[in-house]
Amino acid sequence: MPTFTVLGAGAMGTALCKPFIDAGWEVRLWGTWLDDHLIDAIEAGQPHPRIKVAAAPGIRTFRSGQLAEALEGADVVDIAVTSEGLPRVTEMALDHIAGLRALCLTAKGFWTDPEGRIRLLPDAIRAIADQKGVSLPPLVAVGGPVKANECAAGEVTATTYASRDLALAETLAREAATDTYGIRPSDDETGVELCAALKNVYAISLGIADGLGEATGVPRHNLKAAAFAQAIREMSLLVAAVGGHSETPYGLAGVGDLEVTGLSGRNKLYGVRLGKGETPDGALAEMNRLEQTVEGYPAAPLAVAFAHQAGADEGTLPLLHAVARILQGGVDDVYAAVAAAVKPARP
Amino acid sequence: MPTFTVLGAGAMGTALCKPFIDAGWEVRLWGTWLDDHLIDAIEAGQPHPRIKVAAAPGIRTFRSGQLAEALEGADVVDIAVTSEGLPRVTEMALDHIAGLRALCLTAKGFWTDPEGRIRLLPDAIRAIADQKGVSLPPLVAVGGPVKANECAAGEVTATTYASRDLALAETLAREAATDTYGIRPSDDETGVELCAALKNVYAISLGIADGLGEATGVPRHNLKAAAFAQAIREMSLLVAAVGGHSETPYGLAGVGDLEVTGLSGRNKLYGVRLGKGETPDGALAEMNRLEQTVEGYPAAPLAVAFAHQAGADEGTLPLLHAVARILQGGVDDVYAAVAAAVKPARP
Repeated sequence: MPTFTVLGAGAMGTALCKPFIDAGWEVRLWGTWLDDHLIDAIEAGQPHPRIKVAAAPGIRTFRSGQLAEALEGADVVDIAVTSEGLPRVTEMALDHIAGLRALCLTAKGFWTDPEGRIRLLPDAIRAIADQKGVSLPPLVAVGGPVKANECAAGEVTATTYASRDLALAETLAREAATDTYGIRPSDDETGVELCAALKNVYAISLGIADGLGEATGVPRHNLKAAAFAQAIREMSLLVAAVGGHSETPYGLAGVGDLEVTGLSGRNKLYGVRLGKGETPDGALAEMNRLEQTVEGYPAAPLAVAFAHQAGADEGTLPLLHAVARILQGGVDDVYAAVAAAVKPARP
Repeated sequence: MPTFTVLGAGAMGTALCKPFIDAGWEVRLWGTWLDDHLIDAIEAGQPHPRIKVAAAPGIRTFRSGQLAEALEGADVVDIAVTSEGLPRVTEMALDHIAGLRALCLTAKGFWTDPEGRIRLLPDAIRAIADQKGVSLPPLVAVGGPVKANECAAGEVTATTYASRDLALAETLAREAATDTYGIRPSDDETGVELCAALKNVYAISLGIADGLGEATGVPRHNLKAAAFAQAIREMSLLVAAVGGHSETPYGLAGVGDLEVTGLSGRNKLYGVRLGKGETPDGALAEMNRLEQTVEGYPAAPLAVAFAHQAGADEGTLPLLHAVARILQGGVDDVYAAVAAAVKPARP
């Protein structure tokens, strides 16, 4: 029975335990120093406080001081902490990962390296390993349309595992798939990571279209659909610009994940507020008061900087820039700004 | 001032008049023998009965007996009747289209040729012209995420014009674009037509996911997003199999149109009923009672036959086949059927 250790007992980490339990793995869940209350709930068999679903029976839990035990003899490890927590957890974990077959990554977002360049999270892991002189197992980017509460409840979920080592992604896809958890292997780590980091920004634009409709009573479905298609187009151009496959955003990692993010989620709800006329800062304060993190807000300027590094400017990515400008408070008419960005230019 | 004549005063025909009026064209709208009440409403300045939006001021209306006058001297004509009405209207119109620069097509669907083969609507037009010995102007497939009521109201809309004569599509895209109506030119007539014909079938699967969520109180967003991505994947494979560009479904014609169709629309609502447990025939009868046409219902078996002709079977298009089988009443558990079709196979 292979062993799967998840680092981070938040929503996604806990959810991912479920298919691995179902697939017959030994599953260990390590909570960070911020996760004690989550581990308490899991150990008590109560619903996970963030997803309101009980963790799968059979998970072995570990507290923050028990990292070495959680990792001992593990075959596959998944890092499921926030992008902010990732560097520290990676540093801690790297001392205990000799013999690992794969290091999976459900954490998503951008990382600013010591030189100030914006990079994706696998690069953070590689840089930290380099610095420590540790050789890494192959990385596997886990992406696609996975709402944690549904995955944790065993609802049908399709995901993608992407690794530069495609054979490894295929093997894991075979070993971790269940009747309700399907895995499409891919060799495009960069594409899957970038789609996941961008989708929260683009989901804000979908929310703006919804909010305009709610505010006026006149749906703006043509606008939302045009924004959706434009978001996928821009993801494809940017993925290709940094060496990924232009097709990756057309699958589960892009189309699928943006669909699920546009159906619900905090970034979309934040966009709805903007579409209804709230200011970016006011809407953010209100979301924070409700303890709802809007990942797309800090991600937008990072995405613009990342694109700039890759030579992709506003002409290539008008919707990304429109959202970033809206969030900066520099736009009076959000409808006009989104509309201008998603309407095909006159040929 | 160039002249644009729309054949068919239904929702989409009337809607398309709006951007052409705004772009400064002379716009004529011809109603079929079934459209007198629609023309009445338009002439009285009342809201169009189907879209509840008034037609753009300045449209010249023509009754079914005035087809020759409506077409006289027209530069561009758009056929906007139903797929059932298309052969007859095409036959009637072909006597009056000498000198036309372009024949546009907003009608969408499949056509069964005299040999019983399933084909797309431009092939119907070409066959009828062949039979009559009339030489056709270049055809332009008009597609993308266009809800008629929003387009008619001048809300922001992005569309695609596809013609084997790309230069023509580009010229029209320049001449008909407005501040709120953007047009992306394409040379993939087949891809745009096929996406439009297929999307109503796939929208039923999105509705099923929504209906399952409504019935249980547990959203099935992962399933809906997986179905969305799988639909786009299958559209791409089938478009490529019949000589179109595999990329066309990734843009406005596929991703965009499926998004707008999944946000609302009758096909999606029909799927919701199935997801909530109604039988296919019972749900259809109820929709018909409400005078709501479900285009995807008759289209599903035609789409399967079309795919079969192209050598694309259930292994390639599992979701299309699952929906077709559900509509035939041959499926007890619609959730399991859709889930099996959208979950990536074990590699």
